[in-house]
Amino acid sequence: MNRFAWKGQIYHTNEKRELEIFENSWVLCEDGICKGVFKELPEDWKDAVITDFGDRIIIPGLMDLHVHAPQYTYRGTGMDEELLDWLEKYAFPEEASYSDLEYAGKAYSLFVRDLRRSATTRASIFASKHVPATELLMEMLDRTGLKTYVGKVNMDRNCPDYIREESAEVSGNDTEKWVAETVDKFENAKPILTPRFIPTCSDEVMSRLGEIQKKYGVPMQSHISENPGEIAWVSELCPDTKFYGEAYDRFGLFGGENCPTVMAHCVYSSEEEQELIKKRGVWIAHCPQSNINVASGIAPVRSFLDKGLKVGLGSDVAGGSSLSIFRAMTDAVMSSKLRWRLVDSSLHQLSIADAFYMATRGGGSFFGKTGAFEEGFEFDAVVIDDFALYTPKKLSMHDRFERLCYLYTDSKIIAKCVAGKMIDLE
Amino acid sequence: MNRFAWKGQIYHTNEKRELEIFENSWVLCEDGICKGVFKELPEDWKDAVITDFGDRIIIPGLMDLHVHAPQYTYRGTGMDEELLDWLEKYAFPEEASYSDLEYAGKAYSLFVRDLRRSATTRASIFASKHVPATELLMEMLDRTGLKTYVGKVNMDRNCPDYIREESAEVSGNDTEKWVAETVDKFENAKPILTPRFIPTCSDEVMSRLGEIQKKYGVPMQSHISENPGEIAWVSELCPDTKFYGEAYDRFGLFGGENCPTVMAHCVYSSEEEQELIKKRGVWIAHCPQSNINVASGIAPVRSFLDKGLKVGLGSDVAGGSSLSIFRAMTDAVMSSKLRWRLVDSSLHQLSIADAFYMATRGGGSFFGKTGAFEEGFEFDAVVIDDFALYTPKKLSMHDRFERLCYLYTDSKIIAKCVAGKMIDLE
Repeated sequence: MNRFAWKGQIYHTNEKRELEIFENSWVLCEDGICKGVFKELPEDWKDAVITDFGDRIIIPGLMDLHVHAPQYTYRGTGMDEELLDWLEKYAFPEEASYSDLEYAGKAYSLFVRDLRRSATTRASIFASKHVPATELLMEMLDRTGLKTYVGKVNMDRNCPDYIREESAEVSGNDTEKWVAETVDKFENAKPILTPRFIPTCSDEVMSRLGEIQKKYGVPMQSHISENPGEIAWVSELCPDTKFYGEAYDRFGLFGGENCPTVMAHCVYSSEEEQELIKKRGVWIAHCPQSNINVASGIAPVRSFLDKGLKVGLGSDVAGGSSLSIFRAMTDAVMSSKLRWRLVDSSLHQLSIADAFYMATRGGGSFFGKTGAFEEGFEFDAVVIDDFALYTPKKLSMHDRFERLCYLYTDSKIIAKCVAGKMIDLE
Repeated sequence: MNRFAWKGQIYHTNEKRELEIFENSWVLCEDGICKGVFKELPEDWKDAVITDFGDRIIIPGLMDLHVHAPQYTYRGTGMDEELLDWLEKYAFPEEASYSDLEYAGKAYSLFVRDLRRSATTRASIFASKHVPATELLMEMLDRTGLKTYVGKVNMDRNCPDYIREESAEVSGNDTEKWVAETVDKFENAKPILTPRFIPTCSDEVMSRLGEIQKKYGVPMQSHISENPGEIAWVSELCPDTKFYGEAYDRFGLFGGENCPTVMAHCVYSSEEEQELIKKRGVWIAHCPQSNINVASGIAPVRSFLDKGLKVGLGSDVAGGSSLSIFRAMTDAVMSSKLRWRLVDSSLHQLSIADAFYMATRGGGSFFGKTGAFEEGFEFDAVVIDDFALYTPKKLSMHDRFERLCYLYTDSKIIAKCVAGKMIDLE
């Protein structure tokens, strides 16, 4: 048995999205599984490996439900277009570069390094359409110890020649070969089906992905209801659907017990779409910064949470400029205030606890049982030294945590653990 | 004569708010005054002190037109209230602590240290109502070499006993004594009249401040049209005014040639108020993050700029959580996109050049002739090493700059100069 016990200032959220704070307490891990939080170290744990982190903060690892690895190279640039033009002008040309495996290696090594050093422990990641580069990314990610889903992207229509897949058949064959090769290859990096979005995926490709999904039982990720122009386009492309979500659902690629699915955005999901999301148990990846940067709008997240939909956060690099899920947390809170002020004052702003819940338990459930320090949960944890944020004001434990979320860049991650295994932070 | 020449990748904005980029160029400084930018070092400058910063970025110093020094202790906390409740719950109790000069010393030393190390070269700063702590802050700031205006705050009504000034007379007398003492005391830190805002300042105090302003010729700063509840309150308090700005103007405290004035926010300034702002040459301190955090809304900055109003940026700590004007720049761009999407699609989003203009020339003009590398401008400059942002993608010079603005926390300031004098960055 591999047992260790950490002492520190422990924070997580409970199922009711409340912040729970355990001052000077112990959190225990046995064979990768959390054994709970205790005020005193239990008698029978005295010979476990013990680390006293003192006044430092211990939180569950953060979860990134939506991020584009090949776009990491240009994050923080190209902030002058709406979604569809932004794809043509920035995303597609850069993603085309990943046909060059040497370039992919250089670019992905930076993405992987920075994700490894961040507070994120698990992520659901878009690669590009290229199988070799996607497999390289999976290899690199696997070695970090982070738990990731990685998707080779499908796109066989409505995009420039230089990035479009040759045909629906090639797209499907490439995907099946890649899934078959990688589904059991890595311990930590797993394949996830990744049709880019309905506009770039023909019915033939979607239908084939539906078959692959059934055959291999892999999960699924895509985009939905992000931007008014995009939604109108999908409605034209799929005249037989009542709403965007149906365009995935009719191929069996929209949740349900055997097809865990995460959909990014839902800025403009109709009531009917939300009902289907709930019925199928689809996870929503809320990406507040990206929704601002490509001028999409603000998703009604408070309403999703109150209705019991499953919501996590996504950095959505490079629609988002930052890989940090702390930043996504504060962007979610800030966006919700503007939505309250400018769109719908019946929906209260999100609290920092709501945001923390989404960043941990909310997104964590997509990866299994993780995202909190509860007995039986996989043990993902991050230890943070916030001494550089020293202030003479006596802060409550709540305020200390809120401040960390807003000012995380001035703090320092000193330990990180995924499913009980330490991650190299160098 | 003190002459030096710096070589590097030079960026600034011109009067038309366009980004001007000078690759591998020289910027010259003589006795604190910029002598322009040159592709080659002029022949007669060969014996000036020369520094080749290589591939590093040189920009004008950033200007913070609105920041509350005593609130720096709790930045990033208390993000759950609208303006008026936020003042009662967070701002007032903390500001009351500055009656204790020892506490003020500890707290202000952190604010001053972090401002010194930031990319900001000049700032217009609110202190608290306390004269001794305000003078201490001025002393500390003066030693840094940054150019600052610092205001002892007036507040003699509509606030809790523990922070309210004893009477209008005490408020006025304290203020006049403080102005007289400090108006010529420091080289770099200067007094600025600072009635908190109309709700907390009686007519007697405002009238007295008007007299002090005329007598000493000091500038003036306050808040205006930030929040609907605040505006309704001012309208009740001043039934004889047509709009908020008049409540300052009737005391001669709203711009004009002899009373340089900067007003924070203008989120809800009416057309009439904007006309008076223009007529009086009042500077607007746009504080996008604060306007989100206390759920105020989004100011129509694009419209202000197009009309020729004078606009700079403010961090507005602790309504804003970050002291960084880079963050204020990207928050301004991001806010403007949401305003376009959610409020008024006739106003285009701000560009990064618009934001950079506001952060440099726009705010700079409040301090004199500074904010660009033009001949005759006071030489404020910051040199930044962005190597940690390395990407294998070939970035244009424009994109490299935009990325710096979004990701500045991952870069490093290596030199900083105010009016030709180097600032200690340790």
